Amino acid sequence: MTPREPTSPFLRACRRLPVDRTPIWLMRQAGRYMAEYREIRARHSMLEVITTPALAAEVTLQPIEAFDLDAAIIFADILPPLITMGLTLDFVKGEGPVIENAITSTRDIDLLATPPAEATILANTLEAIRLVVAELAPRNIPLIGFAGAPFTLASYAVEGGGSKSFARTKALMYGEPAAWRRLMDKLVAVQADYLLAQARAGASALQLFDSWAGLALGKEDYEQYVQPYNARLFQKLESAGVPVINFSTGTTAYLPSVAAAGGDIVGVDWRMPLDWAWEQIGHDRAIQGNLDPVALLAPWRELEFRANRILEQAGGRPGHIFNLGHGILPNTPVENVRRLVDFVHERSEQMARAAVTG
Amino acid sequence: MTPREPTSPFLRACRRLPVDRTPIWLMRQAGRYMAEYREIRARHSMLEVITTPALAAEVTLQPIEAFDLDAAIIFADILPPLITMGLTLDFVKGEGPVIENAITSTRDIDLLATPPAEATILANTLEAIRLVVAELAPRNIPLIGFAGAPFTLASYAVEGGGSKSFARTKALMYGEPAAWRRLMDKLVAVQADYLLAQARAGASALQLFDSWAGLALGKEDYEQYVQPYNARLFQKLESAGVPVINFSTGTTAYLPSVAAAGGDIVGVDWRMPLDWAWEQIGHDRAIQGNLDPVALLAPWRELEFRANRILEQAGGRPGHIFNLGHGILPNTPVENVRRLVDFVHERSEQMARAAVTG
Repeated sequence: MTPREPTSPFLRACRRLPVDRTPIWLMRQAGRYMAEYREIRARHSMLEVITTPALAAEVTLQPIEAFDLDAAIIFADILPPLITMGLTLDFVKGEGPVIENAITSTRDIDLLATPPAEATILANTLEAIRLVVAELAPRNIPLIGFAGAPFTLASYAVEGGGSKSFARTKALMYGEPAAWRRLMDKLVAVQADYLLAQARAGASALQLFDSWAGLALGKEDYEQYVQPYNARLFQKLESAGVPVINFSTGTTAYLPSVAAAGGDIVGVDWRMPLDWAWEQIGHDRAIQGNLDPVALLAPWRELEFRANRILEQAGGRPGHIFNLGHGILPNTPVENVRRLVDFVHERSEQMARAAVTG
Repeated sequence: MTPREPTSPFLRACRRLPVDRTPIWLMRQAGRYMAEYREIRARHSMLEVITTPALAAEVTLQPIEAFDLDAAIIFADILPPLITMGLTLDFVKGEGPVIENAITSTRDIDLLATPPAEATILANTLEAIRLVVAELAPRNIPLIGFAGAPFTLASYAVEGGGSKSFARTKALMYGEPAAWRRLMDKLVAVQADYLLAQARAGASALQLFDSWAGLALGKEDYEQYVQPYNARLFQKLESAGVPVINFSTGTTAYLPSVAAAGGDIVGVDWRMPLDWAWEQIGHDRAIQGNLDPVALLAPWRELEFRANRILEQAGGRPGHIFNLGHGILPNTPVENVRRLVDFVHERSEQMARAAVTG
């Protein structure tokens, strides 16, 4: 039995079906650049918003009300699964996430719990998904669920926060390969369960964020220490029955290895031309990207030039989802977001019409 | 008239002349991982050490006395040229460099001074070079001078310190292209003068550090906003008559464009296999690299495996200088540095002998 073809442009592009105009959503589209968001954050901490379903749902919907976006993404963070595994997590102003009891021994890894998401604080995100879907389903706007990839989570768990050198993570990887395997296995289990639960709660697509692997690792290390775990995770997600986006940054040098791990759509950062990236990935996969978020701070002429270049590089081929190459910056002018979303729709529609009339 | 062939293995490798064993030096080889260095820094600030020729010379020589390294690199920092241009600079503990009066307008750019290095605090570094050369020349150990590439310096000048998004730098680049040109022109002038003065003071080789361009920019932006300035700078350095190393990080995706800018030796980071990098660059150029600095924290077995792999990837081809792919980390065990240096010498000598006897 063939599943009915979706009508949402975003979900159609995920399956490389033809669309009238290129769908667009923006990573971190619910965020500090919006006054509505800042207003809520003035009264609630990051963790409060994430763990209060009504607040998370409200914030998720803010950019949908403000702009003509083709998909919503649930407001959440990649790190809370670490809390469910037994780590503490605090968002320290100006410092970012801080984990007080970071992993320092192989015993710490063995003690990490792997509870099902439904039985933990992650249930709040699942509930927020249900609230948002109830709102958006009648409007045919899909909601994207997401989680962090095992390496990215492992690096936070081991470093205790952000890192420049990933020295502790790599020392574990290189020095204690068996412990590394146990850590990654646990993360695969927790993240697969969490993402499958998000799909059951109503998410129409899932995105895996591997934000740090590319910054930390070369090709050989990626293929040995990261790719097998991502591959296993993508395989487990097949039973969700929804398209899965494989997003990473800094992996330009080994995109074919990244793509080989899995996912229906490969999300690429802004460090490479989109047409080159698509060739590396293979045209039998959809692609998402890849405007430099900083372009949204530039004068409109420049922003338009860059957005147009990406549409031309996509060449009207089915399976392109327009997005940034990384999260939107807090000092982005709201007006530029509006103009970008409308430009991508109008220009791609124009290009599609020109292609048909020849 | 052909210049006489150098006998130092490092300088021979710079010119792709055969060597008995692969030369090795390590970026940031004078640094916190050495007790001798920490002792001096306990009594003097970073800027004090840099601007006091006797101290800078002493610190430069520390790793030369401790390990069997094939070259010294003058102890200095890439940022002091910004002081000579009129910016303030402070090294804040835990925060890194901070510039209070960062560039915020095109007028700020027009006001930047471009004095000759000899007439500024950079004269202290030139004097330190003379002191070190007097010490090392009789021992046939070459000294490397260095400076930051224009983009990397521009990003500090505009961001006021380190940055994740390079948002201000790019906003200037995209939004005020004429001002960007003026800023980069001034930096090319200042850095060319400074590097030529280092060669006159006795440096036997020069390295240009483009630490941030690759992290900040994709291929198209690199080629438009960075490459022409680096190319002009390398051209100016030809009159120095010493080999020049073109080092950058995160530029895996467009190494041919990086190499095309110039330099006799291309220094590559650890995110790519060395043999692949050398093919991209072309075998008519020497290559420097590219052990992950974190490998020095790993057990010896793993460190040896990785160092050996790099030697095998270099394949005994003349023109390989062994180095890290980025600066040495402060928590590196001294014993691992010693073992690495000796291993590279012994193993490469062994490989060279095996190749000859067939």
